[in-house]
This record gives sequence, C-alpha cells and structure tokens, in this order.
Amino acid sequence: MDELKKFSADKRVVSNIITLLTDFGYRDAFVGTMKGVILRINPDVTIVDISHGIDPCDIRAASFLLAQSYPFFPAGTVHVIVVDPGVGTERKAIAVKTEKAFYIAPDNGVLSWLYATQKGYVAREITNQNLFVHPVSRTFHGRDIFAPVAAHLSAGVPFASLGPEIHDYNRGSYKFPQKKAGTIIGEIIYIDRFGNLISNIPKADLYDKEIRSIQIKDVHLDHLSDSYGEKNVGEALAIVGSHGFLEIAVREGNAAGKYGLKIGCEIRITSVG
Amino acid sequence: MDELKKFSADKRVVSNIITLLTDFGYRDAFVGTMKGVILRINPDVTIVDISHGIDPCDIRAASFLLAQSYPFFPAGTVHVIVVDPGVGTERKAIAVKTEKAFYIAPDNGVLSWLYATQKGYVAREITNQNLFVHPVSRTFHGRDIFAPVAAHLSAGVPFASLGPEIHDYNRGSYKFPQKKAGTIIGEIIYIDRFGNLISNIPKADLYDKEIRSIQIKDVHLDHLSDSYGEKNVGEALAIVGSHGFLEIAVREGNAAGKYGLKIGCEIRITSVG
Amino acid sequence: MDELKKFSADKRVVSNIITLLTDFGYRDAFVGTMKGVILRINPDVTIVDISHGIDPCDIRAASFLLAQSYPFFPAGTVHVIVVDPGVGTERKAIAVKTEKAFYIAPDNGVLSWLYATQKGYVAREITNQNLFVHPVSRTFHGRDIFAPVAAHLSAGVPFASLGPEIHDYNRGSYKFPQKKAGTIIGEIIYIDRFGNLISNIPKADLYDKEIRSIQIKDVHLDHLSDSYGEKNVGEALAIVGSHGFLEIAVREGNAAGKYGLKIGCEIRITSVG
Repeated sequence: MDELKKFSADKRVVSNIITLLTDFGYRDAFVGTMKGVILRINPDVTIVDISHGIDPCDIRAASFLLAQSYPFFPAGTVHVIVVDPGVGTERKAIAVKTEKAFYIAPDNGVLSWLYATQKGYVAREITNQNLFVHPVSRTFHGRDIFAPVAAHLSAGVPFASLGPEIHDYNRGSYKFPQKKAGTIIGEIIYIDRFGNLISNIPKADLYDKEIRSIQIKDVHLDHLSDSYGEKNVGEALAIVGSHGFLEIAVREGNAAGKYGLKIGCEIRITSVG
Repeated sequence: MDELKKFSADKRVVSNIITLLTDFGYRDAFVGTMKGVILRINPDVTIVDISHGIDPCDIRAASFLLAQSYPFFPAGTVHVIVVDPGVGTERKAIAVKTEKAFYIAPDNGVLSWLYATQKGYVAREITNQNLFVHPVSRTFHGRDIFAPVAAHLSAGVPFASLGPEIHDYNRGSYKFPQKKAGTIIGEIIYIDRFGNLISNIPKADLYDKEIRSIQIKDVHLDHLSDSYGEKNVGEALAIVGSHGFLEIAVREGNAAGKYGLKIGCEIRITSVG
Repeated sequence: MDELKKFSADKRVVSNIITLLTDFGYRDAFVGTMKGVILRINPDVTIVDISHGIDPCDIRAASFLLAQSYPFFPAGTVHVIVVDPGVGTERKAIAVKTEKAFYIAPDNGVLSWLYATQKGYVAREITNQNLFVHPVSRTFHGRDIFAPVAAHLSAGVPFASLGPEIHDYNRGSYKFPQKKAGTIIGEIIYIDRFGNLISNIPKADLYDKEIRSIQIKDVHLDHLSDSYGEKNVGEALAIVGSHGFLEIAVREGNAAGKYGLKIGCEIRITSVG
C-alpha cells in the first residue's frame, strides 16, 4: 500500500479528511452543527458522511459500518463516531491511532471490532479541554468534544496532546463465530438497506472448505454463490458480500423481510474439510 | 470571539461557506440541483447541509434548527433556508445581514426567531434579477433565486446589491413563554430524532429559580436534571438541552412516543423565586 | 452558454466535480465508502449527492432525477449513477461523454433519457482494469468500478482510455407521450417528496395549444395553472414544474396520497390546435 508508506514516512501523518458516523439522523441539525464546529477550526478540511441513519444507540451497527468503510479512505483519515447513549455519564472520550487512521469516539465499545482485529494501535483518553468547545454541554459531546478534537487533529495538533495513553478502555463485545470440525456457527450482525443479512463469518473461514449446507432458521442453502445473477429473481442465496462477510440475500428482493430474519439470528454452516 | 472581530474588520466579510436548510427531503434531486447552481457560480465554496428532513412546510422547525446551528459556524457564513409553501405567490425573497452571518430565505416568517432575538440586523428584499438563474420557474426558487443569490454573495457580490433595504418584512410569530410570579408557561416547539421534546423556555429563565414542579400533560417532574445519566433507563427527565432550551427526555428512550406528546403541548413550571 | 464554450475549448475538459446518484439509501456505508475511494484518487474533487433515496432498483426514477439536475452543473461534471440490480451478471459498465458532461453507470438503460433526447454523445464500455479497485467484488461495483473510474476521469485520465467505443449499449425504454390531433396521452413517471405527480409530457408539447381538459383517473382539470398560489389550499392543479414537465399537484397538499395515484397512471390532455 503506497498510502501506508507515505503515512508512516510523513511527519504530518494526518490527512485533511474527517468522516462522520452517528445515529443523529437526517432531520435534526446535530450533524450540520458538528460541521460548523469543524470548519471554524479547519476551514480546508473535507468532511465525508459515512452514515447518520443507523438506529439510535445501535453501537453494533456503527461498529460494522466503520469496519466496512475505513479501509477505503486515504491514510491518515480522522474517523469520528458518535453513537453515545452514555453521554453525560462518566464514560470517557477516546482517541485511537492505528497504522492507517485515527478514530475519535465515546469509550463505549463502539471500536470493539478494531481492538479485536487490529494490532499496534495506541489509545488515548481525550482530556485536553483546550481542544473543546466551551461551555461543554451535558448532552451533545459530538459538537463540544468529538468534532472539535477531530478538527484540531486534522489541522495538525499532535495526537499525543489529546490526553494520556490508556489501557483500560472499553473493549466491547465483538463476537467471532464458533468453529468446530465441520461446523461454523455465526450470527447476523447487520441488515442493510436492501434487506441483505450480513453475518460475522469472514471470507477466510469459508474459502478453504467444501460447503455442504448453510442454514438460517427455515432457509436452507447447499452452496455459496458467486453472484446474485446466479439465482432467479426472488430466490435466496448465500454470498460473500463486498464487506468480506457471508451474507444471505434474495435476488432483487428483501431477505430480511421475506424470511422474517433479524439481527442476532444464528447461521450454521456444515462443511467437509 | 476572534471571528467576530475578523468579520467586522475584513472588507470581504463573507466566508466561503454556504449552509442549506430545506424541506426538500433526501429522495428528490432538489438539493443536488441547488448545489450544481452554487458550484457553477462559486466553484470553491464549501456547502454544508443543516437538514433537508423536516416536514414539508414546517417553518417553525426550520426556524428552530437554524437558531440552534448558526452560532457554531464561522463568521460570514451564508445560510440559505428554503421552506417555502408560498412559492409562486407574491411573497418576497429576503436577505438579512447580522453582525455574524447572512440569511437568504423566503419572506414568510421563517426568520422570526432572528428578528425576535437579535439586534442591529439589516434586511433587504432580493430584487436583483442579474443574480438569478433564468428563466425563473414558478415552483423552485431554491434553484433559481435562493441558491444563486447565496453563491454570488459568497463569491464577493456586495450585500447592498441584492436589493433595497426593507422594514415591512414578515416578522412571523415567534412565541416567548409567559412568565408570572412563580410560574412559567411554555410550549413544545420541536421534537428531535430521539423523541426529545424541546420547549421554548430558555436556560436564562430557569437558572436563577428554585424549581418545584415541571408538568407537561400527565408527566410530573420535581427538578431539573444535570444529565441523562442521573436517571434510570426508561425514566423521564427535564434538562436544559445542548440548544439552550428546556427539554423533556427519556433516558435511552423516546419521550414523544412514550407519553404521546406533540408540538404545541403546554409545559408549566412552578418555582420559588 | 459560456461554460459550454470553455468546455469545448479547454483540453482538460473535465471539471473537478463528481455527482453521485444511487439507490444505496442513507443507512448503510455504501455511499461513504465510494467517497473514500474517490478521495484516495483525487483528493481535491468536490463530491455532490444528487440522491441516494430512490427506491431500490428504480432505474426510471434515477433517470428522471439525473435529467432534471444535470443541466445545472458546471460543464465537465462527472455524473455517477449506481442503480444496479444486475451487478455481478454480465451487464457492461458504460461511460458516456456528451458536449456538456460525463456519465458513468451500469449499462442497464438508466441513461435512456440521455440517448432519447441528446445528440453527438460517445459511449465507451468501461474495460480498463487499471482504473478499478482490486479485488473487484461481485456485489459492489459502485465502490470497485464506478467510483474509481469517475475519480480517475475527474483527475485527468483521458476519456478514451476507459475502454473501447460501443454502439450496442442498452438504450432502455424511455417513453415519449403519444400525440394525436387534439389529444396527448402521457403517463406519471415520478412522484416527488411533496406527492406531486410528474408526467412525461414536456412543456414544448403544451405551450402552443389551447387546453380544454386534463384528466388523470378521477381528477379533471380545465386549464394549466401558472402557479400553486392560483388555487386554494387543498385544491388540485396542473402546472409545468421546474423540471419542465406537466405535473399534477395539490396546493400545500399531497396529490399522490389524496387521489391514490401512482407511477404509470395515464394522463390525458385534450386541446384545440
């Protein structure tokens, strides 16, 4: 990865891009207000919306969307995640630096996938009040803490100045699938706009195996498909989605709606080898 | 405020930021088209969406969202508001300059909070057709008048050239709460994505008082909370929200849904002092 | 048009603007991920969302929204359309250059209005894999093909390098209204956020005629209105919308909801002359 090299070599390792991922929706002014705060601090930054449409307080969905999108951003991107049911309580604010990017979020487990899958990251508690918008409200840290800290970081403020390194952050509860000889048991972790059911079973768990059956509730499939087009319109299929996980879909249809499947449903794969 | 000083000192007082607040939704191409118009006139501008998700024709919601977000934008920002049920009638188009920002909108009362709370502003009727997109349609002044006028303003066209100063603009009907000895009677003016009920009672009306009761319909509370976290999940509370107004919320719940409360509901506070 | 001249004269005919029009919605990370891909290739580009809120697989709606918005963008804008029910099948990816703009899309008829209404365009099959994100997934060509190709084009990669010119692209099924002496029969092709019913009957078909009746299902109107304000609140009217097509609306109301009208409904106009 050229970008990774550049990212490591460059002293100013932060790109001029901030992404926003929240549960603030598209009706209120929360997101627009955060952008105002960011532009006052760093007028030249490019702000990208990942999503503001996840269900309120759905930390697991935020975690999945971030894991799916961050690899495609330039090195040094600052990712801001505000899904924050504990705002106003004693939960910490956290900043994490990986080899590739920065993450600014409440310390409530929303970065669990990151802790579970990546190495060599550094976590800091955000304590430097000089970087906040004052007075800091009790209910909107997106505006008063997360947005301005991200903006200062993107404008060149050193990562170390955000606050002290910590190790007792909230690791959350990222779930890996259970694997026994011939069986993988996973679960649905996200349902996208098209009703596709996305599981926590990664591509790597599947490609060296001869699959015999894929079962989720009453849906039984006997192989992994290569594309939606392989099935007729309205038929179910199992496929590795663009996010790299096993997904149950219906060609030009809505799998979640058709089969009444929800987040948390068990998915069971039997295989030879 | 450093920005305010710079704003006053600088001859080119307009920043290169335009915000958009409309009731156009996220399904049609109205907003995207306005952005095309703006970028043709000022390719270097930064455009920020405040919201396009308010209910059609909800002037009061637009007014509230604007009041809540504008203080966080850089001085000189041009705010465009298009909630325009009277498009195609004789209603005027208006441009207002305050010490801090510019506002471009239909003259239908959507700026009532501004007239009610700010001083030293100047209002002009937008009449300079050289700044419009022609032919001007009867139904989409967002594209043909408001967007291009904002773009020209952000690109350096003088405010005075937009049209003549006027004083008979539509002041709208911004409602202040009624205050008697020991009692404040306000009303719900906005319900946000989380179902929090926001009233028109500002922080300043509350903080010098010893509150005895806060009542809205069947919900009775005996004090103002400092944070959501002070209550258990599912319990109601009254709090001064990040917007600076009294708000009724349910911790990790939806107050509007739980109690069946709507915009316009009366909220009554009794206090000592 | 000054821009058109500049567009033709300039060797680097591509503007630094990319628009996105998809059926990906606002809940998932699809659109944000595409923007990450674009910014890695061209960090200076301006990205504009046209809509991501159309119904899944609604090629006709995408076609209409694009036709309505593209004329208002700077010359050389690169328009990306990803409504792609056939992703993963053998359908081609296509790039079209007109005098004014570039279009990047699946070859599934989503550009039918363009082929039906414009002249002098050039279509190329997108085959240059050097411009793709690898590995190319089977299910998300928006990220792996359409976004990166648009980004490279906006960054100066020559149009001819995208792939070979083709003539057997999918022309889709753009429907013109039927015209007989004294009668025009069209149909509803789009319903906007306000419930306005937009037909495929263009302004040019109406303005030289003395209209006697406009009928759609049980709604009978006897003339074309000049503005919404001409009717009372709640009354139906027929008007040429800002998009240039005949539209049935209800003043401050929802025509589709009020009359139970849907896409595909026939609209019949009788006239003298």
